[in-house]
Amino acid sequence: MKKLKRSARLVEMTQYLLFRPHTLIPLTTFAERYSSAKSSISEDLTIIKEVFEDEGLGELHTIAGAAGGVKFTPKVPKDTALETILRVCERLQQPERILPGGYLYMTDMLGDPRLLNDIGKMFASIFSARDFDVVMTVETKGIPLAYATAAQLNVPVVVVRRDNKVTEGSAVSINYVSGSNKRIQTMSLPRRALAEQSRVLIIDDFMKAGGTIRGMIDLLQEFKATVAGVGVLMEAGEMDGEERLVDQYVSLAKVHGVDPKTKQIIIKPGNFFE
Amino acid sequence: MKKLKRSARLVEMTQYLLFRPHTLIPLTTFAERYSSAKSSISEDLTIIKEVFEDEGLGELHTIAGAAGGVKFTPKVPKDTALETILRVCERLQQPERILPGGYLYMTDMLGDPRLLNDIGKMFASIFSARDFDVVMTVETKGIPLAYATAAQLNVPVVVVRRDNKVTEGSAVSINYVSGSNKRIQTMSLPRRALAEQSRVLIIDDFMKAGGTIRGMIDLLQEFKATVAGVGVLMEAGEMDGEERLVDQYVSLAKVHGVDPKTKQIIIKPGNFFE
Repeated sequence: MKKLKRSARLVEMTQYLLFRPHTLIPLTTFAERYSSAKSSISEDLTIIKEVFEDEGLGELHTIAGAAGGVKFTPKVPKDTALETILRVCERLQQPERILPGGYLYMTDMLGDPRLLNDIGKMFASIFSARDFDVVMTVETKGIPLAYATAAQLNVPVVVVRRDNKVTEGSAVSINYVSGSNKRIQTMSLPRRALAEQSRVLIIDDFMKAGGTIRGMIDLLQEFKATVAGVGVLMEAGEMDGEERLVDQYVSLAKVHGVDPKTKQIIIKPGNFFE
Repeated sequence: MKKLKRSARLVEMTQYLLFRPHTLIPLTTFAERYSSAKSSISEDLTIIKEVFEDEGLGELHTIAGAAGGVKFTPKVPKDTALETILRVCERLQQPERILPGGYLYMTDMLGDPRLLNDIGKMFASIFSARDFDVVMTVETKGIPLAYATAAQLNVPVVVVRRDNKVTEGSAVSINYVSGSNKRIQTMSLPRRALAEQSRVLIIDDFMKAGGTIRGMIDLLQEFKATVAGVGVLMEAGEMDGEERLVDQYVSLAKVHGVDPKTKQIIIKPGNFFE
């Protein structure tokens, strides 16, 4: 690459770091890339670090020594996250979202790439201190959330299927009981999709009793994998005396009530903000 | 926001633009954001434009006048795209990917967020000149590709379901004939998921005869929507004399043969590179 002036180098380094979250980049990579002295690169990184932190984009950690370098960790400040979630709650409380059966229509919001990116950053912030090998979800609606989170954590995604597709080879299947309607269901994961001993972050769009997530946790035992975190966009607040099947999880929003008669919907920020 | 020096402003503007592709940003937005003169902002944009274009990140278009501003259009140079696709082909040709029935295991690659981001950028580049309201795909494996593309085009994603879920309200369902095995199948889309007259980009992971994509095109007619582009990651090259059900499409890779006996797999760049 040609030698760049500081101004051009700052633009280039900014994009380089933003597209490589949770990745240690040796200073020599930048020094060679721009034919610059390491001291100039360090000065550039100081400027970038300040802007990233002031803007609430994330942290830039410099690790000294021969194996050192710089690492960008996306981080959303808690008050920014709360603002986003309050806007999500407001949108979800529109009366026309109530569907027959008291369900809420939220497919449009899960189709909005910018909102997904914001939510992915939130989950990545919340779980940034733990090490994950993979983000896991179950088809279908959790998939975009899982990818948005995995992109920020720089790990792959594994999607659990509700049936066993011939195009994915030998798979491990388990039966689980969906907590809300007590039906027995099946989920499966291809053998080669997950290495043994993997540390897994489970992400899903909605949790009621937690039967589906409980199923994923059980499935992971078949792979000798560890669940190192569970995050859901939304949880049902009212459980009608029913027991939750998952203890440790983070929710970003909580449905406190949907009344098809009065068309009233009450959604508040989830347990992460409590 | 506090007044920033040029160096900090460049870092800030770079991230602001990168996270807002296909979005017209008035210069006054930047001028107010950084309490800077528009002339300084213009100079900054010249520097950013040069780096973005040299680096093959995309184009920065300045639109003059009162309704003007600057717009970032992600663009991948064709030779960079070809390099990426050649690496994809190479990985897909590993003999251990052959599954019973002559299928290829590619789930792991569709789980890699960085590769998906690269492919999303390719589709966004290829179709960047056309205006879309939405990217559409069918569950399950096309979903991450659709989101990666939509994020770069700054439009929402609509996912066609293979069954009609109660949580999405009234839906339009159609029957279609899967081209490869001639079975009648059903796909459906919630009424409220797509506005009439929408211009749609269809994205999917794999196309053989094209029955599924033909089904999506038929489904779109029910919504009075227009198909303004079709992109698939991979197409089957050998059709055994069968007719393709879709005429106009872009493929990034083409499977020329999978031989379960000799374990030989031949995959080459798709029609976009021909």
